[in-house]
Amino acid sequence: MGKLISSPQNPLIKQLVLLKEKSRSRKKSGQFLVEGKRELALAIEGGYKVETLLFLPELFSEYEAETISQNGIEIIEISKEVFQKLAHRDTTEGVIAVVQSKHHRLNDLKFKSKTPLILVAEAPEKPGNIGALLRTADAANVDAVIIANPKSDLYNPNIIRSSVGCVFTTEIAMASSDEAIAFLKNNDINIFSAILQESKPYHTHDYTLATAIVVGTEATGLTQEWRVAATQNISIPMQGVIDSMNVSVAAGILIFEAKRQRDFK
Amino acid sequence: MGKLISSPQNPLIKQLVLLKEKSRSRKKSGQFLVEGKRELALAIEGGYKVETLLFLPELFSEYEAETISQNGIEIIEISKEVFQKLAHRDTTEGVIAVVQSKHHRLNDLKFKSKTPLILVAEAPEKPGNIGALLRTADAANVDAVIIANPKSDLYNPNIIRSSVGCVFTTEIAMASSDEAIAFLKNNDINIFSAILQESKPYHTHDYTLATAIVVGTEATGLTQEWRVAATQNISIPMQGVIDSMNVSVAAGILIFEAKRQRDFK
Repeated sequence: MGKLISSPQNPLIKQLVLLKEKSRSRKKSGQFLVEGKRELALAIEGGYKVETLLFLPELFSEYEAETISQNGIEIIEISKEVFQKLAHRDTTEGVIAVVQSKHHRLNDLKFKSKTPLILVAEAPEKPGNIGALLRTADAANVDAVIIANPKSDLYNPNIIRSSVGCVFTTEIAMASSDEAIAFLKNNDINIFSAILQESKPYHTHDYTLATAIVVGTEATGLTQEWRVAATQNISIPMQGVIDSMNVSVAAGILIFEAKRQRDFK
Repeated sequence: MGKLISSPQNPLIKQLVLLKEKSRSRKKSGQFLVEGKRELALAIEGGYKVETLLFLPELFSEYEAETISQNGIEIIEISKEVFQKLAHRDTTEGVIAVVQSKHHRLNDLKFKSKTPLILVAEAPEKPGNIGALLRTADAANVDAVIIANPKSDLYNPNIIRSSVGCVFTTEIAMASSDEAIAFLKNNDINIFSAILQESKPYHTHDYTLATAIVVGTEATGLTQEWRVAATQNISIPMQGVIDSMNVSVAAGILIFEAKRQRDFK
């Protein structure tokens, strides 16, 4: 029989609540929480290392916990009270894991293609938008996503949830915009910055060579660095009254135009 | 000097709180609340009739209220306490209006183009997704949006907010899927249902004739009626691990492929 924790006041549980709630705690410890069977399976598939598995025996069997477990994973049975304290979702799956963060360095990115297609998002803020961007990146099978000038860590429970696990299956790097621009230039990747000024309509460009499509925030767009660094600034022609598009929709339109030109290969 | 309401217990204020919170109250009264200067200006531009204007004098002057006012609008000064009770947002604009709903009937739709481009969304649920769909529809200047088998009314404060006012500037009809299909067929509009079964890749089709692009929910997709009624079922090729796309992103990709084929005219 393994360890059992039944009190929400247990020091480990208190520490895990911080991991759930505080970006700072996640950064400091290099750990985060993954909740749910599917998310956990995707994290393992994505090469993440599970450190501790906590399960609620009413919903998740110890046998199941041991099946998932890799060498060296600690398995802890928890009470319903502890589970409710740790759970972010109204899930009924009864499993939460402590997982090791990745570093998300530019130089660790591995491209599948010789003419990579990369999505760059500068300073995205809303977890829902980041989730939708990552879902698009997964569906388009892009070579990598770069989050430039990140506003938050990737392991916010709302990002994990809204990405439906795509945060685990996509090659992601985080860096300053300066570093990202230098990286793209060093790798001879064309930079297409989505920006209104001095731009051409997106559909008049060729994205079949190595391509990075760069989108900014809805509120302020891209920083000047990206405008200056661009091989070409591009824009989506808008013809409405309000002309405001969700950033993840705009990124989807641009990425799939590149996919179309590449004949989805 | 006009009327002043300082108590949140005032019967009118209680009624307006219901308008804010309850779809049923909005449907029954045929009224809803619009908050903020920009949203209100867009509602007026969209032909909505304002019935009552409530303003907080610290933030919005009576002069400004009278400037906006059309004939027959009642202007009411409210206290900060009342404003906080009615306001949905952390806005500092100090203006809330009671506005008459529209009927959103299929037969009232006016198409700008002889070969209209229409976005149909079946049973969309999340206000944020509906808002993003309407923003895309505005930016693409589609001829109309049809919400088929609607799950909610359009005037939910979260829909108004997430649409950044596009709910007021877009031609929108609400109808059952059956009625919408009959309407499209009667008007000789080609139906392209986004569905995986028996579908062809979206980019291999011609959307330059009268076109309705139809998307379903993320959870269950489109109902069979749309599959059967389709001129052609279409799908976005997905090549990822998870292959799950946000519905508003998918709609954006399909609508802008149609726009591209039409050369943004």
